Amino acid sequence: MEHRTYPEFSTHYPLLLTTFMKRPVNLYPDQIGVVYRNHVSGEYARFTWLQWYRRTSQLAHALVNKLGIKAGTPGQPGDRVGTMALNTHRHLELYYAVPCIGATLHPINVRLSHEHVIYTIRHAQDKVIFVDDTVMPLLEAIYDQIKDVVQMVVYMSDKPGLPQTRIQNIVTYESLLADQADVYDWPYLHEDTNATLCYTTGTTGQPKGATFTHRQLYLMTLHVMAMQSVSNTPNYDAEGAPGVRLGENAVPMLNTPMFHIHGWGAPFTCVFNAQKIVLPGTFTVQGFCELVEREKVTAVGVVPTVAAMLLEYKDFDKYDLSSLVRVGVGGGALPLGLKSKLEKMLPNFRVSSGYGMTETAPSTIASFVKKHMVDWSKEQLDEVMVKTGLPILGLEIDVVDEHGKSVPHDDQSVGEIVIRGPWVTEQYFKAPERTAEVWYGGWFHTGDIAKVDAEGYIVIADRLKDVIRSGAEMVPTVLLENLISMADFVLEAMVVGVPDPVWGEKPLALVSVRPGYQGNEEDVIAFLTTHGVDTGKITRWMLPKLVAITQDIPKTSVGKYNKKAVREQLEKFLAIAKDVSHHHE
Amino acid sequence: MEHRTYPEFSTHYPLLLTTFMKRPVNLYPDQIGVVYRNHVSGEYARFTWLQWYRRTSQLAHALVNKLGIKAGTPGQPGDRVGTMALNTHRHLELYYAVPCIGATLHPINVRLSHEHVIYTIRHAQDKVIFVDDTVMPLLEAIYDQIKDVVQMVVYMSDKPGLPQTRIQNIVTYESLLADQADVYDWPYLHEDTNATLCYTTGTTGQPKGATFTHRQLYLMTLHVMAMQSVSNTPNYDAEGAPGVRLGENAVPMLNTPMFHIHGWGAPFTCVFNAQKIVLPGTFTVQGFCELVEREKVTAVGVVPTVAAMLLEYKDFDKYDLSSLVRVGVGGGALPLGLKSKLEKMLPNFRVSSGYGMTETAPSTIASFVKKHMVDWSKEQLDEVMVKTGLPILGLEIDVVDEHGKSVPHDDQSVGEIVIRGPWVTEQYFKAPERTAEVWYGGWFHTGDIAKVDAEGYIVIADRLKDVIRSGAEMVPTVLLENLISMADFVLEAMVVGVPDPVWGEKPLALVSVRPGYQGNEEDVIAFLTTHGVDTGKITRWMLPKLVAITQDIPKTSVGKYNKKAVREQLEKFLAIAKDVSHHHE
Repeated sequence: MEHRTYPEFSTHYPLLLTTFMKRPVNLYPDQIGVVYRNHVSGEYARFTWLQWYRRTSQLAHALVNKLGIKAGTPGQPGDRVGTMALNTHRHLELYYAVPCIGATLHPINVRLSHEHVIYTIRHAQDKVIFVDDTVMPLLEAIYDQIKDVVQMVVYMSDKPGLPQTRIQNIVTYESLLADQADVYDWPYLHEDTNATLCYTTGTTGQPKGATFTHRQLYLMTLHVMAMQSVSNTPNYDAEGAPGVRLGENAVPMLNTPMFHIHGWGAPFTCVFNAQKIVLPGTFTVQGFCELVEREKVTAVGVVPTVAAMLLEYKDFDKYDLSSLVRVGVGGGALPLGLKSKLEKMLPNFRVSSGYGMTETAPSTIASFVKKHMVDWSKEQLDEVMVKTGLPILGLEIDVVDEHGKSVPHDDQSVGEIVIRGPWVTEQYFKAPERTAEVWYGGWFHTGDIAKVDAEGYIVIADRLKDVIRSGAEMVPTVLLENLISMADFVLEAMVVGVPDPVWGEKPLALVSVRPGYQGNEEDVIAFLTTHGVDTGKITRWMLPKLVAITQDIPKTSVGKYNKKAVREQLEKFLAIAKDVSHHHE
Repeated sequence: MEHRTYPEFSTHYPLLLTTFMKRPVNLYPDQIGVVYRNHVSGEYARFTWLQWYRRTSQLAHALVNKLGIKAGTPGQPGDRVGTMALNTHRHLELYYAVPCIGATLHPINVRLSHEHVIYTIRHAQDKVIFVDDTVMPLLEAIYDQIKDVVQMVVYMSDKPGLPQTRIQNIVTYESLLADQADVYDWPYLHEDTNATLCYTTGTTGQPKGATFTHRQLYLMTLHVMAMQSVSNTPNYDAEGAPGVRLGENAVPMLNTPMFHIHGWGAPFTCVFNAQKIVLPGTFTVQGFCELVEREKVTAVGVVPTVAAMLLEYKDFDKYDLSSLVRVGVGGGALPLGLKSKLEKMLPNFRVSSGYGMTETAPSTIASFVKKHMVDWSKEQLDEVMVKTGLPILGLEIDVVDEHGKSVPHDDQSVGEIVIRGPWVTEQYFKAPERTAEVWYGGWFHTGDIAKVDAEGYIVIADRLKDVIRSGAEMVPTVLLENLISMADFVLEAMVVGVPDPVWGEKPLALVSVRPGYQGNEEDVIAFLTTHGVDTGKITRWMLPKLVAITQDIPKTSVGKYNKKAVREQLEKFLAIAKDVSHHHE
């Protein structure tokens, strides 16, 4: 008898995305797994898990046989496959077929500048690019600068055929799949095989390519699920809404672009959870409302500015959005005012917040009610839920001063967030110098600053570079933004530092007003005085010295406040700003 | 600038039990984490998470400095530390201190025969043994046969001082900890370091030592938690009881002995969950009821025979057990009759079933309501919940015929359960031949046979060796046992095959009757005919040919039906058995 052992099927059983992909088709082959709504035509496509799995298997065959995509090994990424795509069933097929054959998925952020899109494709050396019809004009525009790298373009559309194009070596996605076998013998890859390559938005210099292995994405997903399993349901939910767990019957809508940090992990979690996945193409207010009503969506993740767009939508009341029970807000701080406004309009709605970045895949910090808080009142819990949150279990997260020493948990001292754990990127692709700028002393340095309270809750204070240094003091702009946004008349608020000959910097607040409401610069300061200074949340010297009422608060490609853009157009904003510094006296 | 990377803190961040141990003390240092009730004196000991963590740190120092315990490396286990202990806070301290310094924990099954206890200690070469005062007589009895191996004995008791003993080299646990520092710098071990060594009960030959690494136990725990996060709450729970998730506020009582397959994983899951852990020493009916009432226990795991003991307890009605909302039943099939009887007596009670074995650490198959079943009636769901269940996510489980081919999912065809996945033991300790008997063709072979229904639910049919081969047919004894146990007058039922000159084997049913109830051999067959044959669940030729009414159904050390013991005392049981074979005519 042979005395071999099987570590590959036991102690070293590989943690692969393949395991996620197989679960729903094994459990629920004939149930609808993926629903896609074309945001231009409004047409729907619906797939059972078996149909989706077979298409993904066909895609795998096509990648290997027709496109010649090669698998990688640990430390040696396979061929890179770029996607220029929105949230569609095809993108979800690519999310699994590419990594599960051992190649590297590179979801290209199509909202970056042309220069940066070109840079990421050339830097990644994408062998093939899969492009959505609606993104085709972008690819056309940059094609001359990437055609020496990209050997083939695959055109993805709900309509048959190819468009008029000067791009050579182009085929349609559906013709690529058409004659492929729909069963694929997925390999047991090594878990350290690279799976994805995600570039940062490049707010400082060129984008950096964070790399992730199968093991990393598997472990992120599993820890996020484990975190959900220990979540403590507050008692108040028993009256208002859902303390019950929805489990696999949750219906998530993938609202965050899948080209943006793995769509916040939803393409992994939701598939492994075997939940019906609703894909909206790209976010539109109408599409959002229609999909929630029609597909009974229960959970969405949004950035604060998208939440603000919902509040503005005139037909909002025409839809039945009562199925929505969980809304995660990330990609920026969650203003308490925005939270309470949304909850007023949607009674079943419970918002939560979180934090992550490209280099952390991204899940790192999330809203969490501690076990002794379940009996707290809704008002007390709201204060907890708008804090950035607690570390996801399995991660080590610290907030440290400039000497690497943990700051006191006093809800005041600020320091830099540092992280280590199973799913933090090990290195940027082909950029050891830039890796060394963030990974030193055994920690990944986020460049974000935060404070910690006595309960361990972390609250993001600001980007290091966004802190306003006014005299010897640091003005916490996010706190100001949150306070201002609580005013009824305010839709959004952004605070930035502008040069000041005396103080070095002074705070400028840009404030947009809700339609139908009145409010001027003095009202902003009056509100801050009453609800901030008088309540002890801020000191008088933190009050903005300048306020500009404007409906044009600049946003980044992913909907975050773009403070860099404000600084670049500072003259414009200063021209409409009113000096309110007399309030400091 | 140094251009190194940190795989040890990112892509290869080790999956260690240390991470579990640190979570509750970081989150809830001053909350009660561990409650222990001495089952002899009835006295309680209560520890905050910080107190428990400090004691565990002191233990780690003592292991290294005073006992000279050495850490292992991947493939080379560290020193083995044996425990002869019940479910106490000290055992829970050992569960973390030993593996987290890199050594191997060997929880000795003190219910094995003396011969097997001696065998496991000598085979494991336990350098130190930690022994509970109540288990001390066993250690005394076998000491001469192990004293050349065991260098030191540590005596654990709630009373101070050492007992009269002929054992040399013995110290008390509390004196060992007393002068140690209560902060320990836990090492970042390699995740492939061996953590535990668990011996099988040795029903065939000497016990076999299944080995588990930190990675394996970490991944088992995480997958079990992830499985809980996707559990689908049936609608009927909304009326009767708890569809809400308890999260960290669940209060688990660790009822399964911690020397029995990691106490079904509870010492890992409950610590990582930061739940208040209730430890009863050993199971007693009174202790069980008192702890549930006083500590508001919400979840327990029991074997079917323990559940049957509860039904018999005369003072059962004197306790308020309404906090109990989840009871997992494993270590044997769950008879539907037992389930419904328990649910009648405890309205908030929901039973579930599961399957696992020493070699699988043990979680493999568990009750699970599929997503489309949440609206089913309680009666329909009960039929689902008593099935052994679905594979835990992350595992590959198949039921195969003798050629290794999957059996049809027709709820009839039986085959052997084979498993592979991250937490299946890679090999038995120092026994390559015995490993090769179970690990071949890329699968671990359980020796248990089962059938699979169209929904994928696996139902354990029997141990391979326990199948009754009557003529050309296989008699499913577990099915018979389940049916008989549904009769009101029946407490427990076991069916075994006895030699028969015509059929090879014929079924003998051993049946115990509930106190205060009447029922004879003919009643058993009459019930089986009405509720089994007439309903099409069994055929007439499956009816037992012999029935014995007895209150002495033999059990193994872990409370399972001991069919081997019946065969050994067959004459005794045949003497009281009544021939009921006329019913076949």
